[in-house]
Amino acid sequence: MLNLPPQVVEFLQQPNPAVIAVLRPDGFPMTVATWYIWDEGRILVNMLDSRSRLAWMRKNPKVGLTVFSDNWYTHVSLYGSVVAIEDDPDLSGIDRLASHYTGHRYRNRKVRRVNAWIEPAGWHGWDPSGRLSSPGVEAS
Amino acid sequence: MLNLPPQVVEFLQQPNPAVIAVLRPDGFPMTVATWYIWDEGRILVNMLDSRSRLAWMRKNPKVGLTVFSDNWYTHVSLYGSVVAIEDDPDLSGIDRLASHYTGHRYRNRKVRRVNAWIEPAGWHGWDPSGRLSSPGVEAS
Repeated sequence: MLNLPPQVVEFLQQPNPAVIAVLRPDGFPMTVATWYIWDEGRILVNMLDSRSRLAWMRKNPKVGLTVFSDNWYTHVSLYGSVVAIEDDPDLSGIDRLASHYTGHRYRNRKVRRVNAWIEPAGWHGWDPSGRLSSPGVEAS
Repeated sequence: MLNLPPQVVEFLQQPNPAVIAVLRPDGFPMTVATWYIWDEGRILVNMLDSRSRLAWMRKNPKVGLTVFSDNWYTHVSLYGSVVAIEDDPDLSGIDRLASHYTGHRYRNRKVRRVNAWIEPAGWHGWDPSGRLSSPGVEAS
């Protein structure tokens, strides 16, 4: 499991804005905004089962995630692999994410959604205050 | 040149929060926060010349960029190729970005920095109001 400083883990546990990068079959990385949950070292994301990026991560499990604080300059980035993809027939996965971000369950009950679990392999932090920065990262 | 709806171009012209995805040599996409400028269809970014992601984009020019509005759910994502990398010896490149985002030139004058120009090949927009969404993208 990736070894992260406790203040970075604490940051990742908050309902922060995030963007996920997935690899298109033509090799371009595609990035989109996403909800995520940090679950004891693994990352949960959830998508409509019709999303292109779900098909792309089935073909190539390598993904990246950047998580922002209120000040978007402060961020923690992770990269790793999708290690499990599972249907979310009772919407408990998206409800967990919706509750974390909005305080209530997901409103649209008539959709087919899928959970993906990401195992991070490395990280990079950047923070003007230095608190969340990786060792050796310059401020400018 | 990529054909974008005028409201998307207008959005990209603002000094918005953004994240860039670059491909590591081991194939993982790595995402970090970045300043960017939309310059008549091309995208300017600028880095310290010591940044790992500069070496990575020299090896693999395929990159992605997500640009956020104040509400981070609303975003426009682009993917494309780095078509030019050039030294920024007088810091005019980073000054242009700093002025766009902060209103004044870049404070640290003792750094070696590099411009990279990205030519977008495709895009995806998502907006709860639909204004910046790509055609056919569902809201949930």
